Amino acid sequence: MAYALAGKLAARPGRRDELRDLMLESGAALDAMPGCMLYLISEARDDADALWITEVWNDEAPHRASLQLDAVRAVIERAMPIIDMDRMEQVHLVPVGGKWPGGPWPG
Amino acid sequence: MAYALAGKLAARPGRRDELRDLMLESGAALDAMPGCMLYLISEARDDADALWITEVWNDEAPHRASLQLDAVRAVIERAMPIIDMDRMEQVHLVPVGGKWPGGPWPG
Repeated sequence: MAYALAGKLAARPGRRDELRDLMLESGAALDAMPGCMLYLISEARDDADALWITEVWNDEAPHRASLQLDAVRAVIERAMPIIDMDRMEQVHLVPVGGKWPGGPWPG
Repeated sequence: MAYALAGKLAARPGRRDELRDLMLESGAALDAMPGCMLYLISEARDDADALWITEVWNDEAPHRASLQLDAVRAVIERAMPIIDMDRMEQVHLVPVGGKWPGGPWPG
């Protein structure tokens, strides 16, 4: 069953650009993971320190496995000191339909 | 500049399935809008009344224009009575990169 995550990741004040660049590295590490359908990094428009990460996976298992990838773990380790953990939000989702690049949602 | 929206849409208690079906209709109405890159409807896993809508547009203008489409306005009108407006959340985003279906984020 498809699985998605929508989450806010807030940087410590003034450090969003650094955190964004780290998350872009993390996104690049997921390019080769076939279970990862989407991993989109966005800047919040109304909160200078917040990023939003949208992840769509074909199942929850490959998402869990991705957190064990060396490249992802290395990014997490470097990101931790600049993340404001108190402002973190994460919502677990089950995608059910809509428009997807190239056609309807394939799930 | 690309534009994205992440938002929670909560149904009145017990009416999420109805709201989901209405949002799927709205998603179908966006199939023909070229500026709409993604419109994903998801059920929150830990909140029986909540949906999350993830929208990605190539610019904010076509998003605003979509709200004026007859088909979309008709869905909004039918959805309003079953939405719990007090629980609505919406975050405006600027996508900056990551993995996109078929390759890297094209923005």
